[in-house]
Amino acid sequence: MLMPKPTGVPRNLSEQITGREQGASRFRIYDSHPLGLPEYWYPVLWSKSLKPRRGIGLTLLGKEVALFREGGKAYALDNRCPHRGVPLDNAQCDFAGTRTCPYHGWVFELETGRLRAALTDGPDSPIVKKGSVRVRTYPVEERCGLIWIYLGEDEPPPVEDDIPDEWLLPTAIVTGRISERAGDWRYAVENGYDEGHVKYLHRRGVWTFWRRAPGWGWSEPRISEDGKWLTRETRELGFSAEFPGLGAWPPQKWYKWRPGARGIKFRLPCTLRVAYRAWAHFEWYVPTERGHHRYLQFICKHASGLPALWHRIKYLLYVRPFFHNQFNDQDAWMVENMVTPPEILYRPDGAMQSVRQYYEDTARGFGREPVERYPREDSGPGAS
Amino acid sequence: MLMPKPTGVPRNLSEQITGREQGASRFRIYDSHPLGLPEYWYPVLWSKSLKPRRGIGLTLLGKEVALFREGGKAYALDNRCPHRGVPLDNAQCDFAGTRTCPYHGWVFELETGRLRAALTDGPDSPIVKKGSVRVRTYPVEERCGLIWIYLGEDEPPPVEDDIPDEWLLPTAIVTGRISERAGDWRYAVENGYDEGHVKYLHRRGVWTFWRRAPGWGWSEPRISEDGKWLTRETRELGFSAEFPGLGAWPPQKWYKWRPGARGIKFRLPCTLRVAYRAWAHFEWYVPTERGHHRYLQFICKHASGLPALWHRIKYLLYVRPFFHNQFNDQDAWMVENMVTPPEILYRPDGAMQSVRQYYEDTARGFGREPVERYPREDSGPGAS
Amino acid sequence: MLMPKPTGVPRNLSEQITGREQGASRFRIYDSHPLGLPEYWYPVLWSKSLKPRRGIGLTLLGKEVALFREGGKAYALDNRCPHRGVPLDNAQCDFAGTRTCPYHGWVFELETGRLRAALTDGPDSPIVKKGSVRVRTYPVEERCGLIWIYLGEDEPPPVEDDIPDEWLLPTAIVTGRISERAGDWRYAVENGYDEGHVKYLHRRGVWTFWRRAPGWGWSEPRISEDGKWLTRETRELGFSAEFPGLGAWPPQKWYKWRPGARGIKFRLPCTLRVAYRAWAHFEWYVPTERGHHRYLQFICKHASGLPALWHRIKYLLYVRPFFHNQFNDQDAWMVENMVTPPEILYRPDGAMQSVRQYYEDTARGFGREPVERYPREDSGPGAS
Repeated sequence: MLMPKPTGVPRNLSEQITGREQGASRFRIYDSHPLGLPEYWYPVLWSKSLKPRRGIGLTLLGKEVALFREGGKAYALDNRCPHRGVPLDNAQCDFAGTRTCPYHGWVFELETGRLRAALTDGPDSPIVKKGSVRVRTYPVEERCGLIWIYLGEDEPPPVEDDIPDEWLLPTAIVTGRISERAGDWRYAVENGYDEGHVKYLHRRGVWTFWRRAPGWGWSEPRISEDGKWLTRETRELGFSAEFPGLGAWPPQKWYKWRPGARGIKFRLPCTLRVAYRAWAHFEWYVPTERGHHRYLQFICKHASGLPALWHRIKYLLYVRPFFHNQFNDQDAWMVENMVTPPEILYRPDGAMQSVRQYYEDTARGFGREPVERYPREDSGPGAS
Repeated sequence: MLMPKPTGVPRNLSEQITGREQGASRFRIYDSHPLGLPEYWYPVLWSKSLKPRRGIGLTLLGKEVALFREGGKAYALDNRCPHRGVPLDNAQCDFAGTRTCPYHGWVFELETGRLRAALTDGPDSPIVKKGSVRVRTYPVEERCGLIWIYLGEDEPPPVEDDIPDEWLLPTAIVTGRISERAGDWRYAVENGYDEGHVKYLHRRGVWTFWRRAPGWGWSEPRISEDGKWLTRETRELGFSAEFPGLGAWPPQKWYKWRPGARGIKFRLPCTLRVAYRAWAHFEWYVPTERGHHRYLQFICKHASGLPALWHRIKYLLYVRPFFHNQFNDQDAWMVENMVTPPEILYRPDGAMQSVRQYYEDTARGFGREPVERYPREDSGPGAS
Repeated sequence: MLMPKPTGVPRNLSEQITGREQGASRFRIYDSHPLGLPEYWYPVLWSKSLKPRRGIGLTLLGKEVALFREGGKAYALDNRCPHRGVPLDNAQCDFAGTRTCPYHGWVFELETGRLRAALTDGPDSPIVKKGSVRVRTYPVEERCGLIWIYLGEDEPPPVEDDIPDEWLLPTAIVTGRISERAGDWRYAVENGYDEGHVKYLHRRGVWTFWRRAPGWGWSEPRISEDGKWLTRETRELGFSAEFPGLGAWPPQKWYKWRPGARGIKFRLPCTLRVAYRAWAHFEWYVPTERGHHRYLQFICKHASGLPALWHRIKYLLYVRPFFHNQFNDQDAWMVENMVTPPEILYRPDGAMQSVRQYYEDTARGFGREPVERYPREDSGPGAS
């Protein structure tokens, strides 16, 4: 369903959500980070889109970053030259292992950010000799065809700590799409793990056309067996009923025979996993600037040879247009136009509240041990 | 005459006009309402443009409103779902007499705004049982082919109180146009009742081409015979003269033989009436958001049968393009680019000052009886 | 080289640069004038672009100005009618020597700005009789095919004081281009006199293709022989060398045989001169509103008859596209995207610092005698 932008006063979403900061909030860490949690690895770009010939400038977690590739390796530097503050993302390579600021020819080492030369000041440039000038660099890794970056102040953990295990198996195939969206990253998180919206907002569309989706339901939070994910155990799940004074909902259709998603899990910084029979869907909501985020949707499938090829074709012709694109069209409008607080929550929002609490309990970089507030799930993940 | 937007610093008009607030102003009510006076009925939309199938979202007096039609009746609700604050104007109808929020399937009653169901929480949803959740609704009426809305906090008066009597006669034909304009609504009010600008700004155009308009004039405020309108009694009216050191103005043209307007009246909240021989022109300036308003222009004519049809044709082919459109082109530019205070007023601005005072004396909803500061007119309305 | 705008947070440059105000700055006058120095003549427009039939509205040094031409003479008035604050730049001429506000027909004298009539108030208008209403006027002069304006509060000096002497000779031909640019005017000043960027940023392009430009260099500030310009005396100039650990720079090309610029000079308010063999290039950076300026580039050549014609053709076909346009493309991007403070300066920035200091020492209108801080140059201008 196409949703037009509403007329009327534009709203700064991040101002709205951080409004909760003023109030007495249970979610201090969560509410006080409109630009996201710094001490994590974030996927930001397809490896193949970063070419050796030219850099790419991105704003991530409120920081301006310039990405470069050389010798097959990716590098990330602060995107401002310390001399006059011009962006470095279109710096060019005059000498191996370095990039030169386009303005005055200051040459920076990709690996360290150190100023190696100031071409327009000659070979004996005092400022170079001084040796103290450098551009901040950020740790970058490449896994699963993606560039991962760490923008925190602490010593980064291994990138694998922030990548789902199943992605790291040799048979993993990761396909997907990346887009920029308006809306606070936390609205995107809440929309992603939200239990209710799938059953109404997404009820229409090619993807859900013949899927037998529940009409309603709610659950209780659990920690996944491996302890790495917040998940949920269904307490109630309904497929159709008479609503007092209104009528039956949802309408039952004979052709809705395919099963829906089989479980949903969430982990920090902003990673969602939705299980399907043959593969799993993942998404990240990487904060860029206030009120905006980068939305990454992926399918992770295990296969090789012909089945792998077939999966890639299927993704391009079916999963991408009818699952990734169409659901994003519906979600993006909500995430952009949502305004809360104030908010009035209902039973299925227990899922959302558990995510907010999960940040309080487990967020990295706040000098305290993560807390496991919820019981481990005994069985597999509860069906969403 | 086509008027380009001036280059240079953009200005927030409403900030400008409310600048008067700081100063010692005679017009406290008027100056302190950049979003308009709430305790009145405002026309906002043609009835025919609100279809049963989809709602319309409007910002009016700074409030976001969603309008719906069902069973021939119009309804107005606050345009934010109390759950997560998404706009409701594209809610759809799942059950008669209700609209469902597109996000999570919260079902609201059009009449009361009450939450009747939360579809994704099942038939026994606790929040519905609680019965306390409702969306604010606003009184709506339909008269003369228009939708009228009341956004105040007090008990609304009958809508007829804010509609000119002549509109309510069975023979009344109301035609016109509605547009959105930049500019504080009070600039539009002042432009509308302004005595001087017609004689210069509007002197050119098809409409005034053969009309014998006065070159200058000024008047004194009166209250109309029926006590409902602020009007004016001409004190001086000039058609041509020698201006010292400059020359004759305005140039006399033999073909200017048709009479001009025959009188101008104003009433709250923002209703202007200009009398012509065979019909009357009306306009409203409905505040939307700060520095913007909705401009409604109407012709009210009394006729039926063939003359009525002929009037409608004449409106479309002549009155609308050459009176409503062309004058709006000229006025809209002024209202958008005007900056005051500071201002230096001249004799004809007595009319404008009387309008500002009229708000102080008669505005509804400030817990005091309206004051009739000016004498009643003895004769008919003073010619403008 | 085409330079895309970087993604990410937009920045208000003037806020950035005036950030230095907070810090303990050596440059109090310079840093506290984001809208430029008022007590100077500025070139703003080609004379031929101001036609008698219609005015032109410009924002200059933060002031809105309306320019008119009548009887071959140019006039400048404040671009707001004192009555209701509408722009006057599309005022029309009803009586010789005056312009009439399009809104209410207030007639202002071009020469004095005095209100001569209020047409819609009749020939005996009290406000006109009062004689105290006037629009502020600004001194305007026309020289060398350009309109010069003085926006200061003090008595203006002769316009010739702010025009380079060589422009005023009868043989002078001034050609050029005028454009609007984003970026604080001081960034443009610093970019203009900057010693380093030419050698790197501008090293590529048709203009510098066969010019033998130095690879690096630095200089010391001097005052020109005539005492009117800040200039520089080269201390070091290098054409190629081995940069430790990197390699040779710049690459030597056999076809680079033409000499480069022969000297660069600067004077207030924002006037740059670059000497070439056969003519001199000049530029001004006229502040408009915060973070924006008007960029004027000129070539001044002395010739007459056929050589003059040939020069004009050469300008249009070669100098303009490959010098003025192409260098502006490169500089404009820097001036728009620069962010400083903070800044880390290097040896060639001595030139920029001397410009900043030059404002402190010599800026007009601060009630003190100009200071000559630097020695007079003994020889000709140091090669840039």
